[in-house]
Amino acid sequence: MPNIRLTIAYDGGCYSGWQRTQNAKKPCIQAVIEDTLSELHQEEISLIGSGRTDAGVHALGQTANYHCRVGMPVEELRMKLNLRLPEDIRIRKAQIVPKNFHSRYDAVSKIYEYRIDIRNPSNVFARKYAHQEPAGLDLESMSRAAKALVGTHDFAAFCTPRKGEASTVRTIYELSLRKENDQIILSAKGDGFLYHMVRIITGTLIEVGRGIREPETIPELLAGSTRSQAGWLAPANGLYLKEVQYKNG
Amino acid sequence: MPNIRLTIAYDGGCYSGWQRTQNAKKPCIQAVIEDTLSELHQEEISLIGSGRTDAGVHALGQTANYHCRVGMPVEELRMKLNLRLPEDIRIRKAQIVPKNFHSRYDAVSKIYEYRIDIRNPSNVFARKYAHQEPAGLDLESMSRAAKALVGTHDFAAFCTPRKGEASTVRTIYELSLRKENDQIILSAKGDGFLYHMVRIITGTLIEVGRGIREPETIPELLAGSTRSQAGWLAPANGLYLKEVQYKNG
Repeated sequence: MPNIRLTIAYDGGCYSGWQRTQNAKKPCIQAVIEDTLSELHQEEISLIGSGRTDAGVHALGQTANYHCRVGMPVEELRMKLNLRLPEDIRIRKAQIVPKNFHSRYDAVSKIYEYRIDIRNPSNVFARKYAHQEPAGLDLESMSRAAKALVGTHDFAAFCTPRKGEASTVRTIYELSLRKENDQIILSAKGDGFLYHMVRIITGTLIEVGRGIREPETIPELLAGSTRSQAGWLAPANGLYLKEVQYKNG
Repeated sequence: MPNIRLTIAYDGGCYSGWQRTQNAKKPCIQAVIEDTLSELHQEEISLIGSGRTDAGVHALGQTANYHCRVGMPVEELRMKLNLRLPEDIRIRKAQIVPKNFHSRYDAVSKIYEYRIDIRNPSNVFARKYAHQEPAGLDLESMSRAAKALVGTHDFAAFCTPRKGEASTVRTIYELSLRKENDQIILSAKGDGFLYHMVRIITGTLIEVGRGIREPETIPELLAGSTRSQAGWLAPANGLYLKEVQYKNG
């Protein structure tokens, strides 16, 4: 029973998100890959993702693993999958992993990126892959606000409540902003992220960048504030799951 | 009667091309802008483009001009247009030009770019904005072939015949290829380009890059060959009208 891990890139624009769900409006990425794998392996495959991504969110390096009765050379598998999958989903890597490897439980950190396009007028070629802020943003004050979010905090104000979430305490290891051509790129590395957390952090930082929220108000938001006091939920089209990190690489 | 010149960027993916045409399958860019201008100026506006772009072709700097009875400050005009136009069409610049300026007749040169993505597996985020060649291309031999195309030649083999084309002689001032991250970018500057000319040149150079056509065969193609002897028509999604140049800027 080989255990196979996939590293996956996708353009989330045409999907209802990662997770296979009944009655989703658009196809779910997990289901599309599972169905393709089941056809290829001639047995029913269950794919374990590192975690969900929401409708419209993109991935550069989502990970998932599955067990199958009969394996095949991983490079052959990767090519056969890419031939069968729609062109907005690509398998970047396929590898054999130890029998007990689990994409979700074994993940030690995740890196998300959020892309904000500040070209004026807006860049027509970036509009599906970045949130657009043609009026510009104050990067310096956004960076100051970002610093206050790093560390272990209760991020209750920075998430949309979801059933079964035991704790809203998470650790952000790194949160940085950089300018690259006409984009501001937020990079967030943490031990895990709550539902909508990166998008609400981004929305709050955008409000800081627009000058309608002071960077100094961030610590209050981390000290017992509620969702309504934090910022706006930034749109899904700017968010990328960049990398899922594991102890053994 | 002010004469106003617009510099326009568009994502051509959802359009039947620039030119207003009866019974087009998708909207035409010229028609969308003309209708918006007519509404804004409260009079019927006719837009003169620098030339057509085909269905699916993009623009970074298409130009067009129009005459109107009553003008308005150009920056106000530009903003009002961008508020009304769909988000895949952006007016980058609006300017008052002399009464006799004509976007098509006064153009002295045009620059097109063709983007080829060579990432393997293909980049899901580039697929609408670049042609994909994940197996890679030999840039050196493509560049050698490109050199042979520069100059004044009869490009009959490099165009799809179109009614009313008086001559198939054109001058290419520059034709270069460069690598930028995971893309090969072809840049072509000429006094004008025939129907499909940049895409057939690109398709021919791609065949050279794949190793199925010798760079040394290009001169024969320029010396009385017919369309069927030149290469493949590269897809529209990689092509951009980058700039239209005029004597006075």
